Amino acid sequence: MELLEICKQAKEVKQQIAALSTNQKNDALCAAADKLLACKEKLIEANSIDLENGRKNQMPEGLLDRLLFSEARIGQMAEGLRQVAGLEDPIGEVLSMKKRPNGLMIGKKRVPLGVIGIIYESRPNVTADAFGLCFKTGNVVILRGGKDAIHSNQAIVSCIREALGEQGLPGEAIALITDTSHETAREFMHMNGYVDVLIPRGGAGLIRTVVENATIPVIETGTGNCFIYVDESADFDMAAEIIFNAKTQRIGVCNACESLLIHEKIAAEFVPVLEKRLAEKNVEIRGDEAVLKASVPGANVVPAEESDWGTEYLDYKISAKTVGSVEEAIAHINRYHTGHSDAIITKDYFHAEKFLNEVDAAAVYVNASTRFTDGFEFGFGAEIGISTQKLHARGPMGLAELTSTKYVIYGTGQVRP
Amino acid sequence: MELLEICKQAKEVKQQIAALSTNQKNDALCAAADKLLACKEKLIEANSIDLENGRKNQMPEGLLDRLLFSEARIGQMAEGLRQVAGLEDPIGEVLSMKKRPNGLMIGKKRVPLGVIGIIYESRPNVTADAFGLCFKTGNVVILRGGKDAIHSNQAIVSCIREALGEQGLPGEAIALITDTSHETAREFMHMNGYVDVLIPRGGAGLIRTVVENATIPVIETGTGNCFIYVDESADFDMAAEIIFNAKTQRIGVCNACESLLIHEKIAAEFVPVLEKRLAEKNVEIRGDEAVLKASVPGANVVPAEESDWGTEYLDYKISAKTVGSVEEAIAHINRYHTGHSDAIITKDYFHAEKFLNEVDAAAVYVNASTRFTDGFEFGFGAEIGISTQKLHARGPMGLAELTSTKYVIYGTGQVRP
Repeated sequence: MELLEICKQAKEVKQQIAALSTNQKNDALCAAADKLLACKEKLIEANSIDLENGRKNQMPEGLLDRLLFSEARIGQMAEGLRQVAGLEDPIGEVLSMKKRPNGLMIGKKRVPLGVIGIIYESRPNVTADAFGLCFKTGNVVILRGGKDAIHSNQAIVSCIREALGEQGLPGEAIALITDTSHETAREFMHMNGYVDVLIPRGGAGLIRTVVENATIPVIETGTGNCFIYVDESADFDMAAEIIFNAKTQRIGVCNACESLLIHEKIAAEFVPVLEKRLAEKNVEIRGDEAVLKASVPGANVVPAEESDWGTEYLDYKISAKTVGSVEEAIAHINRYHTGHSDAIITKDYFHAEKFLNEVDAAAVYVNASTRFTDGFEFGFGAEIGISTQKLHARGPMGLAELTSTKYVIYGTGQVRP
Repeated sequence: MELLEICKQAKEVKQQIAALSTNQKNDALCAAADKLLACKEKLIEANSIDLENGRKNQMPEGLLDRLLFSEARIGQMAEGLRQVAGLEDPIGEVLSMKKRPNGLMIGKKRVPLGVIGIIYESRPNVTADAFGLCFKTGNVVILRGGKDAIHSNQAIVSCIREALGEQGLPGEAIALITDTSHETAREFMHMNGYVDVLIPRGGAGLIRTVVENATIPVIETGTGNCFIYVDESADFDMAAEIIFNAKTQRIGVCNACESLLIHEKIAAEFVPVLEKRLAEKNVEIRGDEAVLKASVPGANVVPAEESDWGTEYLDYKISAKTVGSVEEAIAHINRYHTGHSDAIITKDYFHAEKFLNEVDAAAVYVNASTRFTDGFEFGFGAEIGISTQKLHARGPMGLAELTSTKYVIYGTGQVRP
């Protein structure tokens, strides 16, 4: 179908989707979950075409694995929709209602954003996840997934549309752009008047392309060059444990730690403790001169270059630099980080507060791992992405971040004098 | 100065401005107000150059008047800064703080956006107003005003910078782009990494240009094609009074009413009442067939064309159409309005609630004039503009809308299992 036609249909049904009751939405989400399970042969069959094409195109094993639908993964997708059905519905909540001196009652009410566009890469489970979160918040979703997963995505969308239809709801609450050309993607980014917001999910290149080209408002979900600063007063064991966790618990994620700052007065004593812990996972340390000097013989340490401070490795590598003060640490972080998540390890009250106040990131931690920046860990029960921009939403985005507000005003004939 | 240099300086001082205490900010705002008054000769002198150039370029009288600095207007600018000093500072407020099962305390704190870019047209008082609101919320502001007001703007900015300097604060908290070429404006819209958000203030053309060209996040402040629907059950006098107010109390503003919908069952009776009231200001009604039919002889009524439903007149003109139901009214409004402010006049509870729920606008009214959509009327004490987009802010934007949030997390050594 033509892109414009898809957008028109989305706009046409958005009012109806916005007006659904929480019960209607929850029933439909559960029906969609049931349908995914009932359609599993169809899904696996469609997926096998994508896998075959992937193999033909020499897709790396890791990506093939991410693409794969097993029965268990289809079960997880269905379970995901059920969990979203179980979450509280933010729509309709009146956040405040105040009476003005002239008697007007002015309320601020949560409403859906309208039509949400999601541009993403290979993983087809995003298709069902994004639908679940957008639908629960009364939004229509238009998906533009990767070419590699097109058959899998089509199968999921047709399955969900069938479930919606059986509930007496318009299938157009979810749409997939099947033309995966770059031209159509760019056209999609200019659908002002039809699409209210675009959320890109994927690597830095995809996000940059969307930010640079879209005329529709974008929520930038970002890359993470996360820092941990080990203050002079830090507990060494706690610091080593947190760094080990933040670096190695999962390496390919945006909230993994990529860079360390160590107070120069403790470098000689702390670096050997750290090296011992990181050696368990054979993490390579890229250190400045002082770190190299403090290193024990045989440690996995190489000299860092300037470019290391700004690099998101997503690998068993970490940069490490010494600093003379918490002020220097904060200035270095604000210069090189991506504003995602940064932590200080300290026993000092004033340093902790200073770091919390002055590091300009979506999430700033005292004495905890950066790996907690996540909608589930924050208790939102869901996550559509992690925003690294300051407008609309910052940090993990749950259901509330997929909503807007409207002012509802109750009058008794008031006019402006 | 080069644009890039201006942006770099803004980025350099934003941390310092963000960290100012409320007292420091209020003192500086009052000092800037004093300085504007002390510099009034300098301001009037600079303004006279702009006025002279304006006359040379055949600027219309209305625009010349908007450009003019009188002593009284300089006093108003200063008073505006003092009023902002008197408002509550939203920065630093912790909106929520929750304890997670693992003991992490996760707080959500209001912080400045960072660097705000404002692109605006002739009125030089925006220069001081925008500074006041941005500075109060800990933001640095970069202003790009119109060429017509360049000398006035430069004088205001140099005056405010002097006041900041005397308070021991960096003058770079406010900057003016003196190169008013379109190329530089476009370059400004691409200063990602330096400028956190752009707010265009001005006519539809300016706003469209910014939305279409900027790669920085934009808050769209919009044009208003505002509707009033007179329901079957409406009190006729209340309806006529509200329409008269919404249309004529001030005609050149975005919250003025531009279009009426009238239930067909009351058209014959209500149209004459309405015509009588609107005749007091000689308002031209552009009506559909039924409105024309219901018109009294000699009324100022002409036949409407399809294009009238979507036109923002900003003049003593209003379009009027009959509809068969509240549903038809809502569908027509959602098709033709700009999502700014719409009202229903009714005694019917279900119609009122339906209208509030289903009209997709920033502000939806029952039995009150659309003219109330305004930061001051809403009790915010200030206004930087009225957002017609759904992301970040919708409706009148006060101080809170010039802020972002950050998560501050207090741990005791937590790592992710």
